[in-house]
Parts: sequence; structure tokens; C-alpha cells
Amino acid sequence: MNSPYPSALLENAVNEFSRLPGIGRKTALRLVLYLLRQDEEKVCHFAETLLKMRKEITYCSLCHNISDSDTCSICADRSRDGSVICVVENVQEVMAIEKTMQFRGSYHVLGGIISPIDGIGPSDLEISSLEERVKAGGIREVILALSATMEGDTTNFYIYRKLQAYPVKVSIIARGVSVGDEIEYADEVTLGRSILNRTPFDESYKLVTK
Amino acid sequence: MNSPYPSALLENAVNEFSRLPGIGRKTALRLVLYLLRQDEEKVCHFAETLLKMRKEITYCSLCHNISDSDTCSICADRSRDGSVICVVENVQEVMAIEKTMQFRGSYHVLGGIISPIDGIGPSDLEISSLEERVKAGGIREVILALSATMEGDTTNFYIYRKLQAYPVKVSIIARGVSVGDEIEYADEVTLGRSILNRTPFDESYKLVTK
Repeated sequence: MNSPYPSALLENAVNEFSRLPGIGRKTALRLVLYLLRQDEEKVCHFAETLLKMRKEITYCSLCHNISDSDTCSICADRSRDGSVICVVENVQEVMAIEKTMQFRGSYHVLGGIISPIDGIGPSDLEISSLEERVKAGGIREVILALSATMEGDTTNFYIYRKLQAYPVKVSIIARGVSVGDEIEYADEVTLGRSILNRTPFDESYKLVTK
Repeated sequence: MNSPYPSALLENAVNEFSRLPGIGRKTALRLVLYLLRQDEEKVCHFAETLLKMRKEITYCSLCHNISDSDTCSICADRSRDGSVICVVENVQEVMAIEKTMQFRGSYHVLGGIISPIDGIGPSDLEISSLEERVKAGGIREVILALSATMEGDTTNFYIYRKLQAYPVKVSIIARGVSVGDEIEYADEVTLGRSILNRTPFDESYKLVTK
């Protein structure tokens, strides 16, 4: 008694949904009532798809990205340059960089970044497997493409120090004024960085606008 | 090829989530990646709870609210006044009114409101079953508690006309200035309505503030 929900089945489903990140109890109720209005078959398909995903998804043994097979489609692609590794946090960043169509090398998915507050240390991430890849040879360059935050920088330095033992170039993606931004409104740290890291400008410079 | 997702299993799960109302593809991916990080057991429980809810949930045969049994806990509660029926759109409104603790009668859940734009007519709603309840006798009052919108008013008038054939009082919940609102900022339609529908003020008036 005294539960605001008229049905325990409904309440359980709302509880499950509201455990998902960013989903509050009101949104959870709205989602559950939506599913309740759908055909049983559709809800069944929804549940089965989630289960199948959780049970069958694997990770690429090389770059640790989510994959349907032991080697992901990017690592398996012979037309890509396996000697350049772009280090990212998660699958979302791989998708974002792939969307730019400016990178034809391979990736290394760390599975997060070093964050003492969240209890995530280097050993929780795929850093030693990155070192192994570099150690095995054939790697020319490692590009650090982590978040431009304190945690990202901590992770950048950690990886940089680990890789200093090997003959590999370590670079970091450019930090500067976003394309489309007006200089007046850029924050001072970003603007300062964009001046320090200025690049040569000549006829070959690619003018890109949003 | 050319799917931005590194895995078909992942993409299917994202597709399923993004079909839910208010969930875009980015949010869907975030939810799916969250589930992927959970124990298989937890994801299993999530899926099973949804399925069980969809398969086993029933509706109260009297008020048509969501229920775990043939008669919902409100209709079955002998301490409540079954001769007063509060007409609402959905289960959310029942929960909202129950939360006020100002109503001890019964409900009638229409399952929506008349909305020609969405193709919802009177026959799609539980209006004839409301008429049956009133026809069967023993009902003193029907309180209309639908949205204060064009669709809500259309439904209010439709129900009002249907019930005119019976000796039942039809009332509508008060529309006026929200508790806590400053008069200056109330919209003019609401303010005008609150003047027209003014109520007597004396010692018995309940002063409520948020």
C-alpha cells in the first residue's frame, strides 16, 4: 500500500528504466506506458534485442573497440594504415572520428580515462595492451585523442611516459578555436592555446567552414 | 558497410531504444553502452521485467486503470466513495490526483482524449463504459479532470452531452491561478476564468501555499 503505482508490474518496470543514466521516474513511466501500448510482439523484440546484444557482443582483440567478431572491421581493413594508432576513450569517439572521414589509421579504445574520483586507474584501462601493440613494432605514430579535461590530460601524460621507451612519435589532436566560432567569444585558455599552436598558412591550407 | 556503428548487434539495440518517445539516437547509444557495461544478469532482469509487465498487466474492469487484478485497489477500497467518479485521461493523472490526497472517490480512465489530429475519436476511448457505469445507477457525481486544452474541452463537452440523459451531477475541476503564482504573471485567459469562477471566502477557506 501507499505506492503511487496502481500495479506492482508497472512499478517494477519503472524501477528498471529509472536505473538507466539520465532517466528519471517520470520519463521512465512515460517509456513504460509507451511500451504497454505496443504489441506484445514488439516489446518481445525490444527485450530480445537487448539481451542478444549483451550476450553476443565482443571486443576487437587488437583495438578493443566493440565488434561482432574477434577483429573489428576497421582493424581488418587492409586499406587503412595500421602503423598509426589513434587513442580514444570509447566507441562513441571512434564513431565521431570516423564521421569526419579525416583519419585512415587504426584505433585503440581505452575504455575510459584515468579518473581518481571515479576510482578509475591505469590498470582499469586498456593502456598496457596499447604498450604491447607499440612494443610489438610496426607503429609509427600514436595520436592522443582524449577529452581536453584534467582527466584527459592526466591520461595523456601517463601514456606519453609509458611510450617514451619506444621509437614511436606521440602526437595530440589540435586544441584551438572551434570552426564557426567567433574569436571574441572563445574562452581565453582555448584562444591562448590556438595562438601557441598556430600552423603555417599558405595556398595548401584547407578552408573549412561548418 | 558505411554504418557508423562498429557492430550490428549494437546498432539493433540503438534502433530499438531510439523508437521510444523522446529518445534520440545519441541518448539511445548512451543507454545501450550503459547496459553493455552491466552484468549480463542485470540486463536479463531488465528485459524480463519489461516482458512480464507487457504480458501480465491487466486493466481494472470497472475504471479501466492499469491493475494487477480484475478490480484495481482503488475500486476495491470500501472506504472510498464509489458514487463519485473522477474522469481522467491516463494512469499518470490518477497518480497525480492520488498524490494530492484530496479525493476519496473512484476514477474512470478514458485512455486518452478526443483528438481528430491524432485520429482519436470517442469510440477509441472508454466513454461508453463510463456511460454504462452511470446508467447502472448509484453515481451521484462525475468530475471531469481532463487537460485544459482544446482537445480536453471537446472531450468534456462530448461526455457532458452523453451524461445529460441521466440524473447525475457533472462538474469540472477548477481552472484558475496556480497556487504560488503571482497575479501579474498569470495568463489572461486563466486569470479571467479565475474571476468568473470565484468561490466564497470566509473562515472556512483553506489557505494553501506551496
